[in-house]
Amino acid sequence: MNTIFQDLLSLIGDPERVIRDEEIEESYLSDTLGRLKGKAQALIFVLSTREVSQVMRYAWERGIAVTPRGAGTNLVGSTVPLKGGIILDFSRMNHILEIDEDTLTATVEPGVVLQDFQQHVESLGLFYPPDPGEKTATIGGNIATNAGGMRAVKYGVTRDYVRGLEVVLPDGRITTMGSKNVKDASGLQIRQLIIGSEGTLCVITKCILKLIPRPETSLSVLVPYRDLHSAIRSVHAIIRANANPTAVEFVERSVVELGESFTGLKFPCPEAKAYILLTFDGTAGQVEANAERVRQVADSTGSLDFIRLSDPAMAADIWKVRGCLVKAVEAVSEQEPVDLVVPISRSAQFVSFVHEVEAQTGMQMVAFGHAGDGNVHLCIVRGSRDDATWEKELSAVMHTLYDRAHELGGLTSGEHGIGIAKRPYFLKNTSDVNLEMMRAIKDAMDPKHILNDHISYLK
Amino acid sequence: MNTIFQDLLSLIGDPERVIRDEEIEESYLSDTLGRLKGKAQALIFVLSTREVSQVMRYAWERGIAVTPRGAGTNLVGSTVPLKGGIILDFSRMNHILEIDEDTLTATVEPGVVLQDFQQHVESLGLFYPPDPGEKTATIGGNIATNAGGMRAVKYGVTRDYVRGLEVVLPDGRITTMGSKNVKDASGLQIRQLIIGSEGTLCVITKCILKLIPRPETSLSVLVPYRDLHSAIRSVHAIIRANANPTAVEFVERSVVELGESFTGLKFPCPEAKAYILLTFDGTAGQVEANAERVRQVADSTGSLDFIRLSDPAMAADIWKVRGCLVKAVEAVSEQEPVDLVVPISRSAQFVSFVHEVEAQTGMQMVAFGHAGDGNVHLCIVRGSRDDATWEKELSAVMHTLYDRAHELGGLTSGEHGIGIAKRPYFLKNTSDVNLEMMRAIKDAMDPKHILNDHISYLK
Repeated sequence: MNTIFQDLLSLIGDPERVIRDEEIEESYLSDTLGRLKGKAQALIFVLSTREVSQVMRYAWERGIAVTPRGAGTNLVGSTVPLKGGIILDFSRMNHILEIDEDTLTATVEPGVVLQDFQQHVESLGLFYPPDPGEKTATIGGNIATNAGGMRAVKYGVTRDYVRGLEVVLPDGRITTMGSKNVKDASGLQIRQLIIGSEGTLCVITKCILKLIPRPETSLSVLVPYRDLHSAIRSVHAIIRANANPTAVEFVERSVVELGESFTGLKFPCPEAKAYILLTFDGTAGQVEANAERVRQVADSTGSLDFIRLSDPAMAADIWKVRGCLVKAVEAVSEQEPVDLVVPISRSAQFVSFVHEVEAQTGMQMVAFGHAGDGNVHLCIVRGSRDDATWEKELSAVMHTLYDRAHELGGLTSGEHGIGIAKRPYFLKNTSDVNLEMMRAIKDAMDPKHILNDHISYLK
Repeated sequence: MNTIFQDLLSLIGDPERVIRDEEIEESYLSDTLGRLKGKAQALIFVLSTREVSQVMRYAWERGIAVTPRGAGTNLVGSTVPLKGGIILDFSRMNHILEIDEDTLTATVEPGVVLQDFQQHVESLGLFYPPDPGEKTATIGGNIATNAGGMRAVKYGVTRDYVRGLEVVLPDGRITTMGSKNVKDASGLQIRQLIIGSEGTLCVITKCILKLIPRPETSLSVLVPYRDLHSAIRSVHAIIRANANPTAVEFVERSVVELGESFTGLKFPCPEAKAYILLTFDGTAGQVEANAERVRQVADSTGSLDFIRLSDPAMAADIWKVRGCLVKAVEAVSEQEPVDLVVPISRSAQFVSFVHEVEAQTGMQMVAFGHAGDGNVHLCIVRGSRDDATWEKELSAVMHTLYDRAHELGGLTSGEHGIGIAKRPYFLKNTSDVNLEMMRAIKDAMDPKHILNDHISYLK
């Protein structure tokens, strides 16, 4: 008999929203990759902070594991309930509660889907800049991983747009941190610790977000180069030239070709070996002036061309190719996603290293990413490897890559988080003192370790 | 016999840098206001992380209180060693260790003085945007209070420019958090907790700071209004107009007159009741375009004039008057500084409330501040009150002001911190749950409570 399910059904009182163990769909027991699966006694579609509080108090009193989830779009196993217990699904807590135009803030429930939120605020002449690739993720999940994305070069990451949070503590108590205020030097900033904590410290139930006025226009530009090093070197010159791009992506020709095959679309200048793809936004005058600066940088750094994507259809095609890369790889083979970050000056060096490893190991790796902030995305391609070979070779190549990134001053994750999947690389490259501090904070905030305890670098 | 002094003298081995109790100058026992004084067995002018580590290990083993200080420019008693013990002075750890133009970062010791650092990076064509009023503060102190300042409207606060920290833990262990990387989703972000923690969790010994390219030009503009409400209302319109100002200050005519008397300079348009003072920076084209947008807003919000401060001498005079306000008040009377923050839409309402309280209590209050981010600075003027009257009336008026700010959704401090001076107002307006979490984190990070334990909201 599943007493946890029975108890929660009594507590919530709605059989449509409390699902018992064997009836939980598989997708709720995993992340977006779906490889690793957990189990749970009950899945609850919560509707209110009060319900979250009731469930947490119940779990706390009994020491039952709880795994909160938004859209489950993570790539590192953060939502895989390896410890069993209760899954708290926030997809129905998806209301935009307030758009406060006077303070330029939005107050939303954590289950609001990013693209819905972006569209809504843009329809009001406002703008929410954080823009991770996965637009079907929820705001709560974005906060839990401090999601980054393409626009970070100009606008920063999710952290920079979280003014306040309502959270439920592991023991069920409800509290609010932060506010609609811009500045805050009022006591320890626990909110800042919660952002990016992957749901290990408390459960987010309400989010106060900073908005800005919507930029009036935008323009994308494609700059092809003869080789990757020249392409990436230009990025530093672009930043130093005060050209203030919104996004600066790099993509190699070989990778573009995967996207071309997948979409049936064509990139211009096929003789290039690498491209820099930029966006500018702001007033028409700003956009023109910044693009002109980049044109000058392109000239002086030996670019093969400077292609203004003024035609919206052409711009859409180019971004479609850029946007489909992971799917293009996955159409051919299973892949392991990596989101290493290195200092911007080391991106080219790191990508060259990736090619060396490819040559040495025969493991295909598709690299592209956010050149403006050193966030390198890789798809490590499984190909036809059987389970045992894949597991062994993947682990070896991952260690090689992460070790090199760390030697270059880089970090394990720029925006995906650690979860389960990145644990070994994170542990290997994080000092014992820092781990000890993180664990002391976990012990202080969740002494019974009931929240996302499968994210086990905190044990 | 002062064994602490003797032990530390042996440890450091330099009698010029280890000062015993009765020989410590009074200024080291207080903050910039100098009202409250602590005591200490020893003051050490540290030169290296290793020395800090040695001293902390010594203090840790014996449970001795430690008070780190930079320039001691704080206004809330953060550097008043009420618990005795050891003062760690960082004024000689003031070296800029590296300017890394490739990653646009600077690595500095915490004792580097803000204005020295700003000048240095600007001489290299770079820019460090955080710009609190007190330019003689140190970078370490700025990080400890998450210092804000005027440019926060466009550029954010100190937190947004701290990429990495080397710290010494209370037990003497040395560790580094963060890096030169732009993005970071690698584990709990303890660095974010340390920023703004007022030296209560660990001792900062090295800082990796984000730099940006130096803006090419700047322009200030003065917009006089018939009344304060119109002036502050225009700020919202300016932000919504995408005019992207660097700074947006408000100052009332009555306050300007204090500054005029003090400096012998004159503000234009003396018939105004309030002024908005703005700066724009960027390329000449951006500055012109943004100023033009504000001119249109000024027109449509009933401003009395729109004064471009294109003449550098005139701009300097206007900013001199704005910059001298605290000193102008202090030339006449002792004053208590307040740095409340309210949602930007409530600034005018709050300042009106201040005037009501002035009228009701007879306590003069000089209000001005950062209109662009709701950070209201007040000088509460002592006048001729004797000690007992001042203490009683100040406490009453402070409670009234903080309570009202909190009713309006505001916070105790926007940039000064809590320290000793703001403790009662902070405690009154912070939930027990949040205080309990802050204290649990203090206990986890500094279980013996040896670091800045006089900042006692954490006990």
